[in-house]
Amino acid sequence: MALIVQKYGGTSVGDPERIMNVAKRVVDTKRDGNQVVVVVSAMGGQTDKLINLAKEISKNPSDRELDMLVSTGEQISVALLAMAIHELGEDAISLTGAQVGIMTDDVHTKARILDIKPDKMQEQLALNKVVIVAGFQGINIQQDITTLGRGGSDTTAVALAAVLKADMCEIYTDVDGVYTADPRIVPNARKLKEITHEEMLEMASLGAKVLMSRSVEFANKYNVPLCVRSSFNRSEGTYIVKETNVMEQPVIRGVTADTSEAKVTLLHLPDQPGIAAKLFNLVAKYNINIDMIIQNVSEHGYTDISFTVNKNDVPKIKSILADLTQEVSARAINVNEDIAKISVVGIGMRSHSGVASKMFNLLAQAGINISMISTSEIKISCVIREGEAKQAVKVLHEGFELDKE
Amino acid sequence: MALIVQKYGGTSVGDPERIMNVAKRVVDTKRDGNQVVVVVSAMGGQTDKLINLAKEISKNPSDRELDMLVSTGEQISVALLAMAIHELGEDAISLTGAQVGIMTDDVHTKARILDIKPDKMQEQLALNKVVIVAGFQGINIQQDITTLGRGGSDTTAVALAAVLKADMCEIYTDVDGVYTADPRIVPNARKLKEITHEEMLEMASLGAKVLMSRSVEFANKYNVPLCVRSSFNRSEGTYIVKETNVMEQPVIRGVTADTSEAKVTLLHLPDQPGIAAKLFNLVAKYNINIDMIIQNVSEHGYTDISFTVNKNDVPKIKSILADLTQEVSARAINVNEDIAKISVVGIGMRSHSGVASKMFNLLAQAGINISMISTSEIKISCVIREGEAKQAVKVLHEGFELDKE
Repeated sequence: MALIVQKYGGTSVGDPERIMNVAKRVVDTKRDGNQVVVVVSAMGGQTDKLINLAKEISKNPSDRELDMLVSTGEQISVALLAMAIHELGEDAISLTGAQVGIMTDDVHTKARILDIKPDKMQEQLALNKVVIVAGFQGINIQQDITTLGRGGSDTTAVALAAVLKADMCEIYTDVDGVYTADPRIVPNARKLKEITHEEMLEMASLGAKVLMSRSVEFANKYNVPLCVRSSFNRSEGTYIVKETNVMEQPVIRGVTADTSEAKVTLLHLPDQPGIAAKLFNLVAKYNINIDMIIQNVSEHGYTDISFTVNKNDVPKIKSILADLTQEVSARAINVNEDIAKISVVGIGMRSHSGVASKMFNLLAQAGINISMISTSEIKISCVIREGEAKQAVKVLHEGFELDKE
Repeated sequence: MALIVQKYGGTSVGDPERIMNVAKRVVDTKRDGNQVVVVVSAMGGQTDKLINLAKEISKNPSDRELDMLVSTGEQISVALLAMAIHELGEDAISLTGAQVGIMTDDVHTKARILDIKPDKMQEQLALNKVVIVAGFQGINIQQDITTLGRGGSDTTAVALAAVLKADMCEIYTDVDGVYTADPRIVPNARKLKEITHEEMLEMASLGAKVLMSRSVEFANKYNVPLCVRSSFNRSEGTYIVKETNVMEQPVIRGVTADTSEAKVTLLHLPDQPGIAAKLFNLVAKYNINIDMIIQNVSEHGYTDISFTVNKNDVPKIKSILADLTQEVSARAINVNEDIAKISVVGIGMRSHSGVASKMFNLLAQAGINISMISTSEIKISCVIREGEAKQAVKVLHEGFELDKE
């Protein structure tokens, strides 16, 4: 008898009919001879509705009270799913994060899980029940309700799978797996049978919104077998695996495009020790995440520094850097929001040279200009003009022959 | 410094604007130099909305899961009210029934409170916070969420006031107190300054929907000073007091009309020992509450028995009694839904005779026929035709001079 953790997102439980569908799927899994723990998110739109209520009362509501408020969304889903499973003739029990004992730190609205007690779940599984756990939520040591922030229900599912030593953690979503590229851009993009944790991490942080990075990191750290599947059909999903499971590694696993970033350039900075440190300390102080950083070769004692940030942070970064520009007598700040970051990801490039030059050649042949480059062991990213992003993805997908197995 | 428990019902917190109004009231009470514990119900309509969701999934949802579901309603209210109080510059913390430690029995959807731990509330009050507690809910010993059934938030408020030894428990509602009669029927009905627990109990169970009986019983048992006030204006409400507080007792406190009952008559029953017992055992087995019971004087070894039940129970009672009628060879069952129960209530009638005859005379003078009578130490009820109920209330209100202090 295998123990399977299944996670269903907000779209999958968006209305009573969909909840019944999820219930059927859960019951099928149970009747196939498995123990099942289910993690659910709030019904689609519910969390936003609650946050809007809060905003009508306060522009800046307390994080503790926000967590108290929005955690009701998942509590509603678990109760309804339990009723739906009962209706299909199987026993089931719903549990809040607090009832399971999902202990987190104190950071309301983006808490981190510290510890999970498996006892209550194991006891209910032993009674032949489906155990349904509210995703996205936990409690801190004062018994205050906390929430885990974006992608929190995925993290809950993976964490439960880890403590329960589950045989599989299945993440059900509205796409049916991880593709070599976004199928809306590349119609012949291929669904991957498997992908390594590291590749998935790069794909996730590069704009493939299938799984949140945090849950993948967690799965990697605690060795949780993970897969991504569609809740709307029964097709096999994508397995996220340890590198060692893969017999023969293709060079490139996929291509992604990310248009959420802007490029900020400080021109004509004095090339002195400590200037870059000063700059990025300041940025970190305001909790702004920096992605790529490039420093030009120095000329006549001056240099330029470019970096990318999320477009939402542009107004903040402009006001922060205005003073600094004066202080270090940089010539100007230049912000370009018309950019896209195109990446090729693949664990195989560790052992294959020539990936970067092939990527640059493919883009050059298509007349696409590269303005920034950054590389890691398993990915290469290029910043190009936003309007050329889709063409670039197509060109790279074809050039690296990702449509072929 | 006084400790005041305030309870606001669903209409009082029906939307963000009303929640802000409640917050203002709470903050005013605090700034008058009091410690304040607030109990709130779910936003008006929210509980029904959740129950309808459940009914879309299951005709007969599990009580445990129903409690899990509907208890979110109060959790939403407490979080929003905390935000509103913060917005007005006072510190506040919201707590669920579980977080307070409101321990109940296992009877989901109509649990009874067994124990409440005052520690957490006292600790937060000592930190100068307004403590906001979700009404209507608790947990059982397995940590399952339970709800207290109809009027549960009133019960929560009175119970908290009892364990905290509060100086006053104020129940805010959409009427501004207890009246000598329903002001919609009797325009010159007078708001009572005070009423005894016993009278309030009779009034509550007789159709004056201001306070649920359970909370009044609780207040009486634990000696909690209680008052009913409007959340929409600042007028003084009605105090519910121990008998001994009242210096001079008026004979009659109020007149009520209840049109929710039907009269069931079994005609021509054999007048033998055990027949009535058989009848009412059967009715009790199906959880049907009986109110008034009358047995006619026996003639020729046969008698008639009449009793009143809630109109909702009429279909059930008909099917239950069909068999019995045959078994005991009664002549027929007669159901009359066209009735109203008119009552006069007052602790003073203990020491004043003639109340009953005055009541019957007043009704007779108005040409109103009485078909059943029942009395207790502090009330007299008459069943009349439903269409004559309003007239009866007016006649009795005037005849007993209830418009005068």
